[in-house]
Amino acid sequence: MADFSAGGGILNRRALLKASGVGLAAGFLAPAQAEEEWMTRAGESPGKYGAQSAFADLSRERVGGHEFGAGAGSSSTPLQKLNGTITPNSLHFERHHSGIPAINPDRHSLTIVGAVKRPLRFSYEDLHAYPMETYVYFLECSGNSYRNTLASPANVTAGALSGLVSCAEWTGVPLHYLLDEAGLESSAGWVIGEGADAAALTRSVPMKYMLDNAMLAMYQNGEPIRPSQGYPMRLFLPGCEGNISVKWLQRLKVQNTPAYTRDETSKYTDLLKDGTAEMFSLRMEVKSLITSPSGKMQLNRKGVYEISGLAWSGEGAISKVEVSADGGKTWAEAVLQSEPKSLALTRFRIPWQWSGAPAVLQSRATDNRGNIQPTRSAALQRYSRAGFYHYNGIQSWQVTALGEVKNAFA
Amino acid sequence: MADFSAGGGILNRRALLKASGVGLAAGFLAPAQAEEEWMTRAGESPGKYGAQSAFADLSRERVGGHEFGAGAGSSSTPLQKLNGTITPNSLHFERHHSGIPAINPDRHSLTIVGAVKRPLRFSYEDLHAYPMETYVYFLECSGNSYRNTLASPANVTAGALSGLVSCAEWTGVPLHYLLDEAGLESSAGWVIGEGADAAALTRSVPMKYMLDNAMLAMYQNGEPIRPSQGYPMRLFLPGCEGNISVKWLQRLKVQNTPAYTRDETSKYTDLLKDGTAEMFSLRMEVKSLITSPSGKMQLNRKGVYEISGLAWSGEGAISKVEVSADGGKTWAEAVLQSEPKSLALTRFRIPWQWSGAPAVLQSRATDNRGNIQPTRSAALQRYSRAGFYHYNGIQSWQVTALGEVKNAFA
Repeated sequence: MADFSAGGGILNRRALLKASGVGLAAGFLAPAQAEEEWMTRAGESPGKYGAQSAFADLSRERVGGHEFGAGAGSSSTPLQKLNGTITPNSLHFERHHSGIPAINPDRHSLTIVGAVKRPLRFSYEDLHAYPMETYVYFLECSGNSYRNTLASPANVTAGALSGLVSCAEWTGVPLHYLLDEAGLESSAGWVIGEGADAAALTRSVPMKYMLDNAMLAMYQNGEPIRPSQGYPMRLFLPGCEGNISVKWLQRLKVQNTPAYTRDETSKYTDLLKDGTAEMFSLRMEVKSLITSPSGKMQLNRKGVYEISGLAWSGEGAISKVEVSADGGKTWAEAVLQSEPKSLALTRFRIPWQWSGAPAVLQSRATDNRGNIQPTRSAALQRYSRAGFYHYNGIQSWQVTALGEVKNAFA
Repeated sequence: MADFSAGGGILNRRALLKASGVGLAAGFLAPAQAEEEWMTRAGESPGKYGAQSAFADLSRERVGGHEFGAGAGSSSTPLQKLNGTITPNSLHFERHHSGIPAINPDRHSLTIVGAVKRPLRFSYEDLHAYPMETYVYFLECSGNSYRNTLASPANVTAGALSGLVSCAEWTGVPLHYLLDEAGLESSAGWVIGEGADAAALTRSVPMKYMLDNAMLAMYQNGEPIRPSQGYPMRLFLPGCEGNISVKWLQRLKVQNTPAYTRDETSKYTDLLKDGTAEMFSLRMEVKSLITSPSGKMQLNRKGVYEISGLAWSGEGAISKVEVSADGGKTWAEAVLQSEPKSLALTRFRIPWQWSGAPAVLQSRATDNRGNIQPTRSAALQRYSRAGFYHYNGIQSWQVTALGEVKNAFA
């Protein structure tokens, strides 16, 4: 009856599940359900602003472990409680270096200075006259999943481990309109972006990124971006490490070299095995993880589950995700959501029949540029043991005979 | 210099705007900006759950005008403050008949009964084992924009007038899996869906809709759907009037006829000019409106603006949106966001140079089935004066010489 496509119980991805075969539905019904209190009296009226169910219990997890300084740190998306691909704005991950400034947009402006023919200043309202564009993009902190570079696996949820990645529909003005208007000098090779937070976070962006698909983002999932995401405006560099998409953007300085700022030398530089350092390694590489079942979940019965997860690449669209239930010995191709978008999170799914025996669940993503997600050990080859940025190794979730699900290094 | 594509100042949709030409940017800069308080001290730390900026001032508007009963009524999406296509969950429109039930998912189940070989009951957890799918869909109340069917134009915002439409990424189990498992009898022509709210709202759905793309929706924009949208689960019929997508779904009864419930005879039936009534007219037709500039906005300067709006159709994808600034005398084709999705909101945009003279802004959508949005007078031809469902006439916004923007019947 079961139609297996790989070892450890991975079913054919197009298998039509029947609860009759897997013991899910209750079969012939008892005559009636108990009448619940919510059916006996009118509920709350339509309101001005919606809220989640108390039963859903959704919140971000603070990612800890080292001292960040005043207002600084990060909080991660609870990936294990979500489905689909969009991250609701209240649950989008955060990473700040000096907290969240409460900016009055009427007192904020964006200036373009340096190697330009015509320095410009734009108010928030001015920018609304420019052509906007709308795209769905993921955003990932380059330090995401760093705990998988350590010596032993942290027994935490998928969100606490790898939830410094989120996905939203971003709307804003393509940067090339504004740079073109300022008029680039021939020496213009880099753009230095500065935020209006107390850290004045500053990063150097190669001009080719700015003229390609960089955006001055002003809306996220339809509404003005939240203060925690850069209100009233942020730089957005699709597919690149999150930190380069400078929040609360107030200044773009055009020049012929990078600025080598504190924010790109003390951090966001990759220490390699040979003792050299790689700077401006901006693209986030192909990556995936299973979000259900995942760390700290408990399987309470044998039978069929839907394995579900997320895949993404900073170089293009996801073309394939394979799933293994036997720690990488055999693989089966998962179903991708219709039309995976470039530089966006892609949901993958495949049915799995759990026999009750121990299993190791993994996913391996491939993008349309031919990049394949590496194993953990291959991913660790590249960097010094002190390096923890840009980790994209295959995630292993161990399922014990008791149904516990744990992070594992397989 | 200006590259016009229609009367009243509509510019070429691919025009490269130059602030230098339209007086937007400030030109050569004053040496420095004032140092704002938010740059002098660390801001708020990363948090568990995000919030909007106080300056953004986002909330839904209660749509009033008649008595709804306890817990009932509607609140509409503030379309004029949004951009892109996704509606954040907190701002998705609401329409309830007996308020919002606070359902404990552990005490909620979905049963399938009637003309089936095997009646079934599913818990919330059971349903998570079934294959889920993810799509972006609009949802529109069939009474949306009803005030444009009245004798004089209401001077309200775009959201208050037509904000009973929203758009989200919905994730859930395709209904055909569940109905197939129950085993449809040959007499099965309709499915009667019942909600677990105090109104036990009940609607009759033709089987072909259920077997096509109907979904048991459990996630909205990534997170579990909100109580106001049917937590823990709702029926979702893409492209159809909102009310048929029964929230808090607890029962599907399969039978050979519609049930002609209170909810589909006292409401959601269309009274026609010839005195007959049209029932089960479920598809929402092709429609669009400009969201900026729109009602109650004020233009404070002459010059270039981005006209921006939304278009949608219950029959497919938007293929074209035309915009007029002279009340429909001349039209120019707007830019659509890349790859408009079927049955989803589509953003359109076109630059407009306002001379300071009075203008009437309109948009006219066409879908990929060849349906064209009608004028207001054509839209009103079809229904009795007492009818107000399914209104999809062209929206006119009058711009006065003082820059006031008002709803108008042009």
